[in-house]
Amino acid sequence: MFQINENYQKLPGSYLFSTIAKKVAAFTEANPGKDIIRLGIGDVTQPLAPAVIEAMHKAVDEMGKAETFHGYAPDLGYDFLRDAIVENDYKSRGCDISADEIFVSDGAKSDSANIQEIFGPKNRIAVCDPVYPVYVDSNVMSGRTGVYDARSETWSDVIYMPCTMENGFVPEFPKETPDMIYLCLPNNPTGTTITKAQLQEWVDYANKSGAVIIYDGAYEAYISESDVAHSIYECEGAKTCAIELKSFSKNAGFTGVRLGYAVVPKDLKCGDVSLHGMWTRRHGTKFNGAPYIVQRAGEATYSPQGKAQLKEQVAYYMKNASMIKSGLQEAGYTVFGGVNAPYIWLKTPDKMTSWEFFDYLLHNANVVGTPGSGFGPSGEGYFRLTAFGSYENTLGALERIRKL
Amino acid sequence: MFQINENYQKLPGSYLFSTIAKKVAAFTEANPGKDIIRLGIGDVTQPLAPAVIEAMHKAVDEMGKAETFHGYAPDLGYDFLRDAIVENDYKSRGCDISADEIFVSDGAKSDSANIQEIFGPKNRIAVCDPVYPVYVDSNVMSGRTGVYDARSETWSDVIYMPCTMENGFVPEFPKETPDMIYLCLPNNPTGTTITKAQLQEWVDYANKSGAVIIYDGAYEAYISESDVAHSIYECEGAKTCAIELKSFSKNAGFTGVRLGYAVVPKDLKCGDVSLHGMWTRRHGTKFNGAPYIVQRAGEATYSPQGKAQLKEQVAYYMKNASMIKSGLQEAGYTVFGGVNAPYIWLKTPDKMTSWEFFDYLLHNANVVGTPGSGFGPSGEGYFRLTAFGSYENTLGALERIRKL
Repeated sequence: MFQINENYQKLPGSYLFSTIAKKVAAFTEANPGKDIIRLGIGDVTQPLAPAVIEAMHKAVDEMGKAETFHGYAPDLGYDFLRDAIVENDYKSRGCDISADEIFVSDGAKSDSANIQEIFGPKNRIAVCDPVYPVYVDSNVMSGRTGVYDARSETWSDVIYMPCTMENGFVPEFPKETPDMIYLCLPNNPTGTTITKAQLQEWVDYANKSGAVIIYDGAYEAYISESDVAHSIYECEGAKTCAIELKSFSKNAGFTGVRLGYAVVPKDLKCGDVSLHGMWTRRHGTKFNGAPYIVQRAGEATYSPQGKAQLKEQVAYYMKNASMIKSGLQEAGYTVFGGVNAPYIWLKTPDKMTSWEFFDYLLHNANVVGTPGSGFGPSGEGYFRLTAFGSYENTLGALERIRKL
Repeated sequence: MFQINENYQKLPGSYLFSTIAKKVAAFTEANPGKDIIRLGIGDVTQPLAPAVIEAMHKAVDEMGKAETFHGYAPDLGYDFLRDAIVENDYKSRGCDISADEIFVSDGAKSDSANIQEIFGPKNRIAVCDPVYPVYVDSNVMSGRTGVYDARSETWSDVIYMPCTMENGFVPEFPKETPDMIYLCLPNNPTGTTITKAQLQEWVDYANKSGAVIIYDGAYEAYISESDVAHSIYECEGAKTCAIELKSFSKNAGFTGVRLGYAVVPKDLKCGDVSLHGMWTRRHGTKFNGAPYIVQRAGEATYSPQGKAQLKEQVAYYMKNASMIKSGLQEAGYTVFGGVNAPYIWLKTPDKMTSWEFFDYLLHNANVVGTPGSGFGPSGEGYFRLTAFGSYENTLGALERIRKL
């Protein structure tokens, strides 16, 4: 008789955003007339930029003619996209990354869940707490996290690095030595980040202790302060200790288009074994390339028109972020984030738990946010709102919250 | 110090098609003037059908306007596509599969590599030999295959089911009891298949022995004989023992578009645990949906126009298959397949090994095929040609081979 992967049985509840979707669906069914404003899941609302649309139409036309049809893409991505990535995201920032260190994928969610596969089963992982749930969940599925304690909502073998008001949301070096360190900076959900100097300390720490950093830079486009690194490879020594994951979802609104990439430097090794070679093999065996049309769309985000249009989109969302932040502050809330990231992280009022505040907001303001505790135990007592709504909806949500 | 997944080190060589690509690149560099005809990798050459192109343009336009923009897709696929799949691929054939048993993905390669994740590490896998290499390789990566013996090119813990001329390419029930049985029917690479009655025996065997069947139906559109099942769910009892994987790559030319789906029936359980629930959780955690534009393209393959256009495409390739088969037979080759699948499987002449014949063909006819031994030890002495080239190229390749 076949057996299942028992690790799945250890996972508590369902994926955070599935739970939220179910709660909202139940509320909507019970209250059919209510106009819900969703500032929960970090999904964008602005349409794709005209330069991207144009590139996609052109690519679709190419797929319709035998002379310009494209079948299987190269496993690791088309050169036109890998070259554009290197030129714009790395060379322009003085980072020495080459095109064959770029692995194009169907998005940073897949990459951040899959990357653990090339690592050993006994590695100890460290995560910021709170953080995007995929890092821990994907490690639970492969048996790296030990035993779950329902009371503290923690895993025995995961090293948590609390990021709270008290430490200014800056993770501290853990007491135990981790093997794999997940850093999402600017952070989802807190919307906060660390300086380049602080990131350099993490790179030094990883190189010294023999840890690998999985650096999730999905929100990089929202960085506004000059002392924050746009890539971990701006730090000296990062190529021997860090994998960087990037997404087109937030800077270009590709949540429904699906495109991302991982950087695995050739200098990153475990003994003699190149992780670059392993990830190449993983992609070659388990993935068949991102769609041609989508890779052309990605290329268009780097054209002069594309860049200008995306800059406007980012500014649009950051105007929302700024409005939510100042509006909530005026209403007496304690609020973080929103400067280098499109997320607002607030202390729940009246000592409500995160889920209590979720229900309170859903029922009394018909606004959907994300409970902080869903991102880790130290997220308890906090709540995330995203700036990815339309201006009108964001304004509307803010007015409803202020009236509470 | 972090550790790597040591299983990767066990993998011999690189992924088959990467090796072929490298050999062809080296030949081209040494012989720059030569006109190579590629009948190797199973990639299509005909452009996307007009109905698909039209649907994609429409979807691209939707993505360019705020009112019709689509962000994150539902994890498991849009209802419009899942409903079309159920209606056309299952209900029309009398199979009782519901839309929420369909899991839309970025292709059958990903699904066939990822599906093993939800199973236990000690399960014994059984594969047809020869077969698509991803089944074994993905199990090697997760440590399920034991020790590799370079001489016999076999893994100690894999149960091989030889499919050769001698048994008419019909896999026989293995002596050892497998937990997971991979069946690719019509088979890649042999281009042969089994009857519905024979498939029913496999379903009965799996239900009796407590095995799960991973049924890869990527070539289903090419079935021409009436006694062959188009879905394993045409067999009685398959819902308690089988997962079916389907692709849009071969029936609709989506190799560069990326779309597939898995069927995980709710009746498929290990004790009390539903594999449907596990795969739902896997998709929710590690995947973020196929692109909206691509799912609309998939839907268009089921429209009356789409169906008619794809029927023509399939007929085009099957005309190639028939031409290769009869041409090679006339030239004295022993040839199989090509009736229910777009692959021609031939015995290498003069006792050449598969790779010897690969080199011989590349150097003397400038034609690229795929060495049978790359698909498993029982593929030694065989060679695969695909019917996915253009008519002109296929004819050209055939003429060159006949002149040898």
